[in-house]
Amino acid sequence: MLTTHPFESDADGDTLREECGVFGVAGSDAASALVALGLHALQHRGQEAAGITSFHHGQFHTHRAMGHVAGSFDRDDVIRSLPGTVAAGHVRYSTTGETALRNVQPLYAELQSGGFAIAHNGNISNAMKLRRDLVRRGSIFQSTSDTETIIHLVATSSYRTLLDRFIDALKQVEGAYSLIVMTPEGMIACRDPLGIRPLVMGRLGDAVIFASETVALDVVGATFERAIDPGELVIVQDGQIRSIRPFAQRFPRPCIFEWVYFSRPDSIEGDRSVYDVRKNIGAQLAIESPVEADLVIPVPDSGVPAALGFAQQSGIPFELGIIRSHYVGRTFIQPGDQVRHLGVKLKHNANRALIKGKRIVLVDDSIVRGTTSLKIVQMMRDAGAAEVHMRIASPPTRHSCFYGVDTPERAKLLAAKLDLGGMTDFIHADSLAFVSIDGLYKALGEARRADIRPSHCDACFTGDYPTTLTDQDESADVDQFAMLAERVS
Amino acid sequence: MLTTHPFESDADGDTLREECGVFGVAGSDAASALVALGLHALQHRGQEAAGITSFHHGQFHTHRAMGHVAGSFDRDDVIRSLPGTVAAGHVRYSTTGETALRNVQPLYAELQSGGFAIAHNGNISNAMKLRRDLVRRGSIFQSTSDTETIIHLVATSSYRTLLDRFIDALKQVEGAYSLIVMTPEGMIACRDPLGIRPLVMGRLGDAVIFASETVALDVVGATFERAIDPGELVIVQDGQIRSIRPFAQRFPRPCIFEWVYFSRPDSIEGDRSVYDVRKNIGAQLAIESPVEADLVIPVPDSGVPAALGFAQQSGIPFELGIIRSHYVGRTFIQPGDQVRHLGVKLKHNANRALIKGKRIVLVDDSIVRGTTSLKIVQMMRDAGAAEVHMRIASPPTRHSCFYGVDTPERAKLLAAKLDLGGMTDFIHADSLAFVSIDGLYKALGEARRADIRPSHCDACFTGDYPTTLTDQDESADVDQFAMLAERVS
Amino acid sequence: MLTTHPFESDADGDTLREECGVFGVAGSDAASALVALGLHALQHRGQEAAGITSFHHGQFHTHRAMGHVAGSFDRDDVIRSLPGTVAAGHVRYSTTGETALRNVQPLYAELQSGGFAIAHNGNISNAMKLRRDLVRRGSIFQSTSDTETIIHLVATSSYRTLLDRFIDALKQVEGAYSLIVMTPEGMIACRDPLGIRPLVMGRLGDAVIFASETVALDVVGATFERAIDPGELVIVQDGQIRSIRPFAQRFPRPCIFEWVYFSRPDSIEGDRSVYDVRKNIGAQLAIESPVEADLVIPVPDSGVPAALGFAQQSGIPFELGIIRSHYVGRTFIQPGDQVRHLGVKLKHNANRALIKGKRIVLVDDSIVRGTTSLKIVQMMRDAGAAEVHMRIASPPTRHSCFYGVDTPERAKLLAAKLDLGGMTDFIHADSLAFVSIDGLYKALGEARRADIRPSHCDACFTGDYPTTLTDQDESADVDQFAMLAERVS
Amino acid sequence: MLTTHPFESDADGDTLREECGVFGVAGSDAASALVALGLHALQHRGQEAAGITSFHHGQFHTHRAMGHVAGSFDRDDVIRSLPGTVAAGHVRYSTTGETALRNVQPLYAELQSGGFAIAHNGNISNAMKLRRDLVRRGSIFQSTSDTETIIHLVATSSYRTLLDRFIDALKQVEGAYSLIVMTPEGMIACRDPLGIRPLVMGRLGDAVIFASETVALDVVGATFERAIDPGELVIVQDGQIRSIRPFAQRFPRPCIFEWVYFSRPDSIEGDRSVYDVRKNIGAQLAIESPVEADLVIPVPDSGVPAALGFAQQSGIPFELGIIRSHYVGRTFIQPGDQVRHLGVKLKHNANRALIKGKRIVLVDDSIVRGTTSLKIVQMMRDAGAAEVHMRIASPPTRHSCFYGVDTPERAKLLAAKLDLGGMTDFIHADSLAFVSIDGLYKALGEARRADIRPSHCDACFTGDYPTTLTDQDESADVDQFAMLAERVS
Repeated sequence: MLTTHPFESDADGDTLREECGVFGVAGSDAASALVALGLHALQHRGQEAAGITSFHHGQFHTHRAMGHVAGSFDRDDVIRSLPGTVAAGHVRYSTTGETALRNVQPLYAELQSGGFAIAHNGNISNAMKLRRDLVRRGSIFQSTSDTETIIHLVATSSYRTLLDRFIDALKQVEGAYSLIVMTPEGMIACRDPLGIRPLVMGRLGDAVIFASETVALDVVGATFERAIDPGELVIVQDGQIRSIRPFAQRFPRPCIFEWVYFSRPDSIEGDRSVYDVRKNIGAQLAIESPVEADLVIPVPDSGVPAALGFAQQSGIPFELGIIRSHYVGRTFIQPGDQVRHLGVKLKHNANRALIKGKRIVLVDDSIVRGTTSLKIVQMMRDAGAAEVHMRIASPPTRHSCFYGVDTPERAKLLAAKLDLGGMTDFIHADSLAFVSIDGLYKALGEARRADIRPSHCDACFTGDYPTTLTDQDESADVDQFAMLAERVS
Repeated sequence: MLTTHPFESDADGDTLREECGVFGVAGSDAASALVALGLHALQHRGQEAAGITSFHHGQFHTHRAMGHVAGSFDRDDVIRSLPGTVAAGHVRYSTTGETALRNVQPLYAELQSGGFAIAHNGNISNAMKLRRDLVRRGSIFQSTSDTETIIHLVATSSYRTLLDRFIDALKQVEGAYSLIVMTPEGMIACRDPLGIRPLVMGRLGDAVIFASETVALDVVGATFERAIDPGELVIVQDGQIRSIRPFAQRFPRPCIFEWVYFSRPDSIEGDRSVYDVRKNIGAQLAIESPVEADLVIPVPDSGVPAALGFAQQSGIPFELGIIRSHYVGRTFIQPGDQVRHLGVKLKHNANRALIKGKRIVLVDDSIVRGTTSLKIVQMMRDAGAAEVHMRIASPPTRHSCFYGVDTPERAKLLAAKLDLGGMTDFIHADSLAFVSIDGLYKALGEARRADIRPSHCDACFTGDYPTTLTDQDESADVDQFAMLAERVS
Repeated sequence: MLTTHPFESDADGDTLREECGVFGVAGSDAASALVALGLHALQHRGQEAAGITSFHHGQFHTHRAMGHVAGSFDRDDVIRSLPGTVAAGHVRYSTTGETALRNVQPLYAELQSGGFAIAHNGNISNAMKLRRDLVRRGSIFQSTSDTETIIHLVATSSYRTLLDRFIDALKQVEGAYSLIVMTPEGMIACRDPLGIRPLVMGRLGDAVIFASETVALDVVGATFERAIDPGELVIVQDGQIRSIRPFAQRFPRPCIFEWVYFSRPDSIEGDRSVYDVRKNIGAQLAIESPVEADLVIPVPDSGVPAALGFAQQSGIPFELGIIRSHYVGRTFIQPGDQVRHLGVKLKHNANRALIKGKRIVLVDDSIVRGTTSLKIVQMMRDAGAAEVHMRIASPPTRHSCFYGVDTPERAKLLAAKLDLGGMTDFIHADSLAFVSIDGLYKALGEARRADIRPSHCDACFTGDYPTTLTDQDESADVDQFAMLAERVS
Repeated sequence: MLTTHPFESDADGDTLREECGVFGVAGSDAASALVALGLHALQHRGQEAAGITSFHHGQFHTHRAMGHVAGSFDRDDVIRSLPGTVAAGHVRYSTTGETALRNVQPLYAELQSGGFAIAHNGNISNAMKLRRDLVRRGSIFQSTSDTETIIHLVATSSYRTLLDRFIDALKQVEGAYSLIVMTPEGMIACRDPLGIRPLVMGRLGDAVIFASETVALDVVGATFERAIDPGELVIVQDGQIRSIRPFAQRFPRPCIFEWVYFSRPDSIEGDRSVYDVRKNIGAQLAIESPVEADLVIPVPDSGVPAALGFAQQSGIPFELGIIRSHYVGRTFIQPGDQVRHLGVKLKHNANRALIKGKRIVLVDDSIVRGTTSLKIVQMMRDAGAAEVHMRIASPPTRHSCFYGVDTPERAKLLAAKLDLGGMTDFIHADSLAFVSIDGLYKALGEARRADIRPSHCDACFTGDYPTTLTDQDESADVDQFAMLAERVS
């Protein structure tokens, strides 16, 4: 779940948005402790804030905190404050400060039917429009989160049962959502009709587990059962599991970028090992864009599997030419151009003794603004590299994502501004190549990208958005919205 | 403003409720700094939390904090975070913890008309009923405060202008309210039709000031203009002041306890000096219940003016027989019977050298549970007093208040359980006397309490409540309400 | 205990120094809880920091905190962290920040004989000289406190037993000290040969209690036994009490200002009730400097007893013309001229209805810089007073104290700069009078101040310092010392 | 620098000790900012606390904090509080709590010659003995750090100049020390006569830089000049550099474990690339202990270079079979057996899709207790590995280190308890092999370990300690020492 408008700027004038992760447990005495572990395993999906809600004896309990799961949710007193056999949690990427705490999920509201807690991964692309309508009819919003729109739609629905109200709400929203909902009756997990964001189900003894990725099931020792289907609601109540599919069936379009970058390599997405797919992309790159060189060097850590695939396919030795400090997070998710520049310097150091005088192939997962690539190429040259060839394990990123992936606005995407030659010059590389869009689908086991109804959402590469983008077409409202907000210090 | 139900227990099983204070400034460059000073002067009306909201260039800014005004709102960074020429604030008495922060006022909401901030002194006696109706229609509450009810009534009103919506809302609530409201258009101060809680208006240069008591005007250097009339709305917009009286006129019933205890002695309430009234009560006591003694000793600090009145009327010397530590707050407002017991010991010490062998008259403002009186009498005896006579500057407190004054439930009020003899025995005094209800009205300049339409609300003494008490008659709902709340740690 | 040099400036360029309080318990299972209560009762002697050290099973335990005793030492976890039957504590007035924590007492050191903890009220007037000598011989100081000098003198003494080493150390220091020392063997309380600062002994069951004032005995329920004699060491070991008088006998010179201002009115100092002495001073003032007036008004709270004495002697009614907020500390002890100016405004408010048109006598305990008096006189005039006569319950303060009382340097003392007429003009009073120095001794029961060997230290009024002032005569070293200090942020 | 006794237990009964890192800058306007960056690059050498001291206009400024450099020393206000052109810092591994703050380095003392700050990497093996002697003569210790011993030896030395006093002090200590000292005159860097712990010198423009490892020079953009020689003092004063060698020359014995584990792979130690040495060890392992297998899998992250060496030598493909979360620190350095067990589960996850049905070779840097290896082997089996062969890139660790490396007492070292067969059984591997001690020296370019005067300290493998271990032979004093300490809460 995200704030509604991808183009809204943060304080530093940068425009990074968050990716989130969700995790839910129904039916375990250690529910909130398991959720804490699961969220820790999903920390790469959102590092700025986390929250857990549990339900016990008719009472909801919530703890929210800025920062990592470790440090807040590994404390005994916090876990003890979250009793009960049902619990759900959320990690998110967002801005800092107390203000933001009201945006940290799970969100909670007291409806006529009782408490209602919700954790959301994705982004609702008509949230602003719905919000305006709801406010006009007297709804009062507590947060600036798009997710709260769903709660108000449930609260004001004219249907009678909570389940009907919830489905009524979902039918009014467009965009991407993988949701975990808690009510006094139980837990509901669901995924939007296109299945844009992932959501899987597992088992741990009698407990049912929902998670954004299978790695979170591994970490808590649960077995992976299956993915939630696009458009499916799975309801856990009194130990029973029901499945409902209230939407007209559509061709699924799961986000292809999960394989390229977001998911952990040890996760299984859509029956495929993320690690394998990344190695395949690297091998495909070696086939499509070979180069004479002495060493294959991954940009740590996300470039490692593709670099191994490239090295094995090409026969060029794989070496650690860039050493990464273990005490900072990964690059793509840090806020602020300025911090990122500093970050690169602090986080990566060239292995000079190895690189000096060598022709090297650098393998990275993607290029966003290009500033990181520029610095890494320069770092290699400063360390004495004879030639620097850059290979990218995704097609050029030319379009913003409106479904919950953290991308800057188009004007800041390097591939939206420059052609291949321009990009090669910009990053000062001797050569630059991206895997082709068909090559990417090949790495996923398909012959090529289908012209009609491609199997995935690849809008960031192709601009082919699978849903309408209502708010996007009414962007003049952005500032008006921002002005309404109370600033709490 | 208070939580809705006076009988809801806090964690220690005690049932103290809060009294609040409000302060607003419209038209000063130092608005939020003045509000901080004003709230500091009103600190005696609520010591557990405070908040200030300011409005600047279309944006509302809010800071809320648990604890005293000093320590939070005397910091430069906090005042700088509250820019603008319009600001309002609130002090309140309440429970502790992060959870409560969402209940700290001013409350804020974004309505269709824009931001809406509200600070409330009083208590709405049909808040639960209204809340149930609103939730049924889809409203989502953020706090457990009765004040939020007003906001939702405004948000869902079918009237068009904000002012009409606000009046529509007020007509649906019953009970006591002195309110300061901020909107993008300006500030509205208003007082319920009976004028139960106080609210005054002053001027500081071009700025208009609203405050619960005149002492807060003094402290910021403002001149006292007049009290807001019962049922009056005063609207400050673009430097202009308008007055509206939308309610059918009723006979006012301002709270008589403000003179007895709540207001500061240096405040003017209803054209009368609180200090003078208290001295009058003391003199009246000396007339009604004289005693042979060597010393008149006030129970510090609230008993001092009445003790001076008693001493001057009786000719018995006034002496400081009880020394109060300067580093703790006053007795009545501390939560928890246990803490209070300890508190008496820590906060007061007998002046042994003075008291030994003397017959003393102790003068105090009121008796609630009686535990404090018991301890003070015992302290005087331990210090060697020959006789201890207790004189109380109010009639026996026999009924709970539902209008925003902190009183325990009836079952814990000493005067509701025992007659005068029983009370005298309970506190171990040689004699005990309360001022009569007619004597109290005499101290206020009237001949006696009017049988029909008395001039004040004196329900805590007489049980004569001037409004209906809707929630009170449906108290079975209390627990249901408590169960709905999310517990945030 | 204080930092060594009274003329060293704090960050704001002001020069206030601290007064301290000490409290010790030997032989109670609730030792540290009793110390916390005792320190709370002595809070008026130092509000900026506090510390408690306890001894249990061969181990010393210490907790130190900035700020008041309440808030830090009333927490269960803190008291539990201070086990044992022997404990001592200290309150002090000082600068803020982490830096200062190393100066918060009790100070502790591990000597060859084992742990050594010390709490000090007073000031050592040759501490700088001793420190330079010790550093030259290799001692390393941890704090900038004069008290630490005593510890190093003990550590480097050539005597064999700890007691001999301690006496050896005391014989080298000059100035004022009331000390409580803890060692693995027991507790030692002692007072300098002139007895400048107070120290009393009490009993609570089998436990022995030491305290700066008797009020602290009252608060914990202990009985007052006697004062520690000037030059006496009282040693409590294994439940036995021994007294040692190792110094040549001298005529005592207890600080007279304890009666004027520092001690609580409910304390007994030197067999006299502080309250009584203050009333006597007020009566003496009325005899020495009568005035025609309508009201006698105390400057709260320290002027109250003298005002009562003045009113009773003169027959002019005593009234509360200045109302003091209960939520701030008393004036004299606040740091910073700027804050003090603001402080007066915030803390006191005129009782306008009472004062308007009246001739008033203001009674205060002392005049230091005169800025407070100026503001209070002005406040009375603003409230409509017809005439304002100021009466001061001490002689003019013309000299700095080097024995642990908080006074500014001479150049800032109003009475050191101006004569009576000049002072009257400065504070804008219609008349001003101080009690005479002989009048002050009369209030204490003497005929007048003895020319030779007066019974008290009154150096702040007379400049007659009872000890040499070694550091004072070498003040060029001050800056050098300040430069050596590490600044810890 | 470390606490003195390697066998002293922490609260959890575990016995981990710290390794430290030091960094100093003389002659840069951005001295403290550079130190912060340098410490960040050395964070792997100590993650529990950090401190920086700077010198400016005759004044020392210090900031110390528990936790990582990032979060404390990347704040503008902290860097601004550390002005000056000379600064030094320290990272350390230690216990938590306020108590420990007094042990966080640089330590500081005011000596007769002025301020003296010291940062220490290593451990003094006769610190307890020296401390007892110093306390006997009247020295008072502030910390429980062995490093403070050096300061007191300097303070009490009978030599005249600070440099002579410092050399006098160093001649009395035994063990390992790489030191950076700051005085008002300048900076001194020095290394013990055996050069056990590393220390290098670099240049950044006119500034001189000292650091534990070359990687810290890289990160701040400095050029590596040379290592400080064993027994050398390098003095930087007024921009001039002097070198002094006051000790009798001895054969150096730098710690061999720096290449195996502690130093970062991108550092140069003794003219050798740490990365290259580790790859050489892996290749040597493949030669000494070959195995038939499908995949070579590194235990992340420290096992990666050796695994690459093993894979390249053996021809078996290198694959990422264990995925490490990026949001936690590395295993070896976490306190507490219990936390470590949990840690392994949280920090590493098997790449199931890759491992299932494969014969794998796991490569790790060392085995300490063996509990981590046991869990990783089990993790591989749980993921379906057909065979699991463990190869360790160091000889068996059989002896504790007394020179500043974090090792448990002997009784907890797996290799001190079991032979190879026993260890293989304990970790449940199909086979286990360590590199031979001669193989380790081969990887460093020597023919084999020299029987007489080996070129490195390898006591952890061989028990051949290059210095006397005075405290170690008097260990009965440990408890006595612990009893003396004040516990500060």
